Amino acid sequence: MERSNFLTSLAVLILVLAYASATLSGPKAKKHFVLVHTAGHGAWSWYKIVALMRRSSGHNVTALNLGASGTNPKQALEIPHFSDYLSPLMEFMTSLPADEKVVLVGHSFGGFAVSKAMETFPEKISAAVFLSGLMPGPTLNASTVYTEAINAVITQPGTRVTYNTGLTNPPTTIILGPRYLATNVYQLSPIEFYSSTSSVGKFDLNSSSCSEVSFTTCHTKNGTGSIHIGLPIHNGSLDKRKDQAPIDATQIIPNDEKKDVLNKRKQLLLEENNFVLAVMDLALATTLVRPFYLYRSEDVSKEIVLSTKRYGSVRRVFIVAAENKALNREFLQLMIEKNPPNEVKEI
Amino acid sequence: MERSNFLTSLAVLILVLAYASATLSGPKAKKHFVLVHTAGHGAWSWYKIVALMRRSSGHNVTALNLGASGTNPKQALEIPHFSDYLSPLMEFMTSLPADEKVVLVGHSFGGFAVSKAMETFPEKISAAVFLSGLMPGPTLNASTVYTEAINAVITQPGTRVTYNTGLTNPPTTIILGPRYLATNVYQLSPIEFYSSTSSVGKFDLNSSSCSEVSFTTCHTKNGTGSIHIGLPIHNGSLDKRKDQAPIDATQIIPNDEKKDVLNKRKQLLLEENNFVLAVMDLALATTLVRPFYLYRSEDVSKEIVLSTKRYGSVRRVFIVAAENKALNREFLQLMIEKNPPNEVKEI
Repeated sequence: MERSNFLTSLAVLILVLAYASATLSGPKAKKHFVLVHTAGHGAWSWYKIVALMRRSSGHNVTALNLGASGTNPKQALEIPHFSDYLSPLMEFMTSLPADEKVVLVGHSFGGFAVSKAMETFPEKISAAVFLSGLMPGPTLNASTVYTEAINAVITQPGTRVTYNTGLTNPPTTIILGPRYLATNVYQLSPIEFYSSTSSVGKFDLNSSSCSEVSFTTCHTKNGTGSIHIGLPIHNGSLDKRKDQAPIDATQIIPNDEKKDVLNKRKQLLLEENNFVLAVMDLALATTLVRPFYLYRSEDVSKEIVLSTKRYGSVRRVFIVAAENKALNREFLQLMIEKNPPNEVKEI
Repeated sequence: MERSNFLTSLAVLILVLAYASATLSGPKAKKHFVLVHTAGHGAWSWYKIVALMRRSSGHNVTALNLGASGTNPKQALEIPHFSDYLSPLMEFMTSLPADEKVVLVGHSFGGFAVSKAMETFPEKISAAVFLSGLMPGPTLNASTVYTEAINAVITQPGTRVTYNTGLTNPPTTIILGPRYLATNVYQLSPIEFYSSTSSVGKFDLNSSSCSEVSFTTCHTKNGTGSIHIGLPIHNGSLDKRKDQAPIDATQIIPNDEKKDVLNKRKQLLLEENNFVLAVMDLALATTLVRPFYLYRSEDVSKEIVLSTKRYGSVRRVFIVAAENKALNREFLQLMIEKNPPNEVKEI
């Protein structure tokens, strides 16, 4: 399968949506995409995609906040039923005119809300896109998928649970801490840099372009303009390129050894104190991620009952983000096998 | 006064904080900066600054959510008293150990919270930075400043008010809509672009660097790497540069005429459909800005009573963001004259 380079864990969706748009209808049809975030996140997590789609495609884009997410007014403990968590999407679907169809996109845990909408409003959905999304189906219990996903997250370092009904009862909410977000959600986000000359750029492991490379920096001839930190990765080799041709590293995924070298370079840059490197996506997320209520699996299976006739009538595309670390590949593969979508695409 | 180039309306704060840090103590002293957002915004609005300061300076940084802001659990209508809006900062200040001093930074409306903290906890504040901040004082009524600022915002296109206690009563909340945010808050944010080859970059009116320029694009020789959209601004002239030297436009502020030409170029790029241009900061803000309660001016003047002895004992720095459009320069100047800070800096 085709592998695309990652820009950020969210920016990959540009490809997803362009793909969905191109394959689902003629190139000129105007679509309405409805984007559903994953647990703890909110509409904000789609902001780059929303900005790009609004400007580029002429498509309509709506990013929703599920219950107790983003700027949704409810707090996690106020919505102990899974139906309350899903209700913002249900209300949105209800509000659509009878003759309007939307493309639903669910990221990870957002797959549940998309699934529920497919069962309830199949006539209003032209396609559903599961982006590494949780995808129960008529022959795959929602509670099985839910329990597996929660366990995969809850056991990771950097997550913590709260016990709001006493320590002898099951945990009530899960909080995705900075460490978890850094290692499992935003690990592919670009490292942006600011230099002391106020230049701004991105330090992207998979794409670099510069006209001059030294051990620690790659820069254009005039140091006062924008500066790109060079990654001398070319055709799989790390070397000190001195020629003027820009480096095309877009097809290269650094392996662990290369990453070590890159880390040393980043460290050197920091020590030089000319640059500040920071993962902005991560900093943003740590100010916005909210607790997610740990719904009982029986509640989830009661809420998500999917039929071949209704849910099954909606065209489904599953996107495997190959480097997704929130849910492992085997689990994604299992859902695809047990509940085969119309199409699977790997990015 | 010195003029710096803008990157984004928030990124300018890097300069502010570096400046505050350097002038307030020896270069090695570790500081704790507490960042207070403006109306409708939240801790999220500082995410770039937080990321950069944490990575670069070794300083401690806290960005707070005031009442009904960011992920604060209260809703605007639940906090009709100004003290409730300010309480998260007051609680934070109370929680600080008696021997810890912080640097408070208030952006625009955040100046009220900073002022209140100065009066209540002068011994815990080593300095207060007002970034185009509302700055009442012992001889400048808080209600005067508040009323002036609210009127300046409320009369702008793109803002709307709600009347939750009936149309015959004063408006209850103000909502900063996308149009207002685009023209008065995020008008200096960089236009980022994504190309069809998945490259990412920033299109910065004040800084460009590229090795080749054509009418619509400036790119490195290899089109598959990162691509920079060229701005043939050099030494004040707009021309089609074909030489290899990168353009240093960091000292050039485009005038209106140049901006027109740039806008035409952006349009052409969009029509070519090879690039997508988007103001990401704006897209983010539109998913996160929340209603701000319109507090009665009597409530504000009751809540913010400032004395020379307490408030006046804290070192105060005022930063005039020259291109700030949320509050006009004359108003900023008036506050500086009526309530002179220890230092004024223009950026």
